[in-house]
Amino acid sequence: MIKIAIDAMGGDFGPRPIVKGAMLALKRKLFIPIFVGNKDEILALLPKRYRAKVSIVEASDVILMSDAATDAVKKKESSIYKAIELVRTGEAHGVVSAGHSGATMTLATLRLGRLDGVARPALATLMPTKSGRRSIMLDAGANVDSKAIHIAQFAIMGGCYAEDLLKIPNPSIGILANGEEPSKGNEITKEAFKILNGYKGFKGNVEGTDIFNGSCDVIACDGFIGNLVLKASEGVAATISQLIKDYIRKSPVAITGALLMRKVFKLLKKQIDYAEIGGAPLIGIKGCAIVSHGKSNSKAIENAIYQAITYVDTGVNEHIVSRLKELKNKEV
Amino acid sequence: MIKIAIDAMGGDFGPRPIVKGAMLALKRKLFIPIFVGNKDEILALLPKRYRAKVSIVEASDVILMSDAATDAVKKKESSIYKAIELVRTGEAHGVVSAGHSGATMTLATLRLGRLDGVARPALATLMPTKSGRRSIMLDAGANVDSKAIHIAQFAIMGGCYAEDLLKIPNPSIGILANGEEPSKGNEITKEAFKILNGYKGFKGNVEGTDIFNGSCDVIACDGFIGNLVLKASEGVAATISQLIKDYIRKSPVAITGALLMRKVFKLLKKQIDYAEIGGAPLIGIKGCAIVSHGKSNSKAIENAIYQAITYVDTGVNEHIVSRLKELKNKEV
Repeated sequence: MIKIAIDAMGGDFGPRPIVKGAMLALKRKLFIPIFVGNKDEILALLPKRYRAKVSIVEASDVILMSDAATDAVKKKESSIYKAIELVRTGEAHGVVSAGHSGATMTLATLRLGRLDGVARPALATLMPTKSGRRSIMLDAGANVDSKAIHIAQFAIMGGCYAEDLLKIPNPSIGILANGEEPSKGNEITKEAFKILNGYKGFKGNVEGTDIFNGSCDVIACDGFIGNLVLKASEGVAATISQLIKDYIRKSPVAITGALLMRKVFKLLKKQIDYAEIGGAPLIGIKGCAIVSHGKSNSKAIENAIYQAITYVDTGVNEHIVSRLKELKNKEV
Repeated sequence: MIKIAIDAMGGDFGPRPIVKGAMLALKRKLFIPIFVGNKDEILALLPKRYRAKVSIVEASDVILMSDAATDAVKKKESSIYKAIELVRTGEAHGVVSAGHSGATMTLATLRLGRLDGVARPALATLMPTKSGRRSIMLDAGANVDSKAIHIAQFAIMGGCYAEDLLKIPNPSIGILANGEEPSKGNEITKEAFKILNGYKGFKGNVEGTDIFNGSCDVIACDGFIGNLVLKASEGVAATISQLIKDYIRKSPVAITGALLMRKVFKLLKKQIDYAEIGGAPLIGIKGCAIVSHGKSNSKAIENAIYQAITYVDTGVNEHIVSRLKELKNKEV
């Protein structure tokens, strides 16, 4: 049975939403959660009927948000470190952490290692679109100062993810740029365009608006840019939501309107809510690591666990290795 | 009196919204619009009582969206070229164009020239924020592959704009990066950070979410990144609006709710609507050029004209030259 190591201590709200998220997942999927963290705290959150269904690995330390990602390798007793070690030793198939994301990515890359042919792993996020189908943007922030070959590899890894996990038969793949024409882009993306030219599904450059209109399944970019686009998008959604709330508060008529529109807002929230996705996989490592938001609620953790299970189930890693080999042969 | 050259032909909807926008502006501000374009078409849109208040300069050619920006210098009979020439020769104080933005920026840079000390002009956009106060993001797409000194100059030019045009006494200035700590950023932004360190108002790195929360007045970034952030933000807003409309359409209760919330949506639209701002100034050139969206309606053109008038009125260009000189002296 699939075993998922779960960093119980990393989230902003302590182990409660994390343990609860795992219990929710247990109701719908067959897997064994291995909680890593303070045993007493975890047990206290676990009703008796669940105790036989889970494992617990004691970890006495936690990597704090104020710690540098690079110091994570030294904190061998931390919950993230130990959770990732379980994947390295084969005791778990994948890991979910809502802790320090830089530390998780650094540890997963260094301790588990990169897949054959992968120059840099990438953080992949699923973005909501008008069409309802999600697009994948990567790298969303694992690395900065990417070279052209890195961006080309992100595109290919994202394509494998779209095929295997999102079940999109022939995913369209684009490079994020400041215009669709091949002449657009910066030095790096123009070179990445040349590497990907002719690759199956590659449709060339896509623009910022294309991330959310559903016109492209896989969108590759440097992690510095992916982070900014992601944060800016979250900022826009939060600002719109805040402005609507502020305006409503000032008008009784609008309050009534908002009540009648409650279902609409609920559907909208479901569509753009982070918790519906649960986490971003770090693609390109040997194994499976899902990076969840520090503010994850139990629903987000539940969904992150489903993501990890599917990731392991599909064998997307082998797919990535063989596709990257093809690209390399093409280059030679 | 201030004279504003207006490219009457460049917009996606022909001269109608442009001429109308200028007439709206004439009702509220003292200035002389100099329309550049097809004289007959412009006259046909102009009621008799306006004819004495405007000038018209014939231009027989238009730069098409399919034209390359670099070809614009050859199209000397085009409305954009001729409108910019009016600024160069001193016949107009500023220019507004909703035409080919790449052509407008290229022509304005090459024909008007850069201000003393400016390495690269930048396109500055005003972003809506939660607080209601707008933040300025630049470069929004005039250049790609910016070097550190370019980004530092964008920051300083944006600061002058905030002081003079937005009347913010001590604007806070940030560099757009993937985290607030000085250790965050890519190679270019880290170097720009060092150049700006100690500059009045400089608060260090700001994140993507900071663009819309009102925590920073001036946000400097490379134009490739600015373009992507801008387009992605527009995409999010459009997607949310589309999803709300789709959901409403399916429910009579929600339709009623939406009617009661009409005023809220109207206020929201006003807050995030492009037309409320009207255009983005190209900062750093000798003169004043406002780049409007191709899809500008008359209200957008009206506001773009107000922007041009204020830009000319405030003498922001002299301010920029003296501030950049200070930075240079500091470096030496």
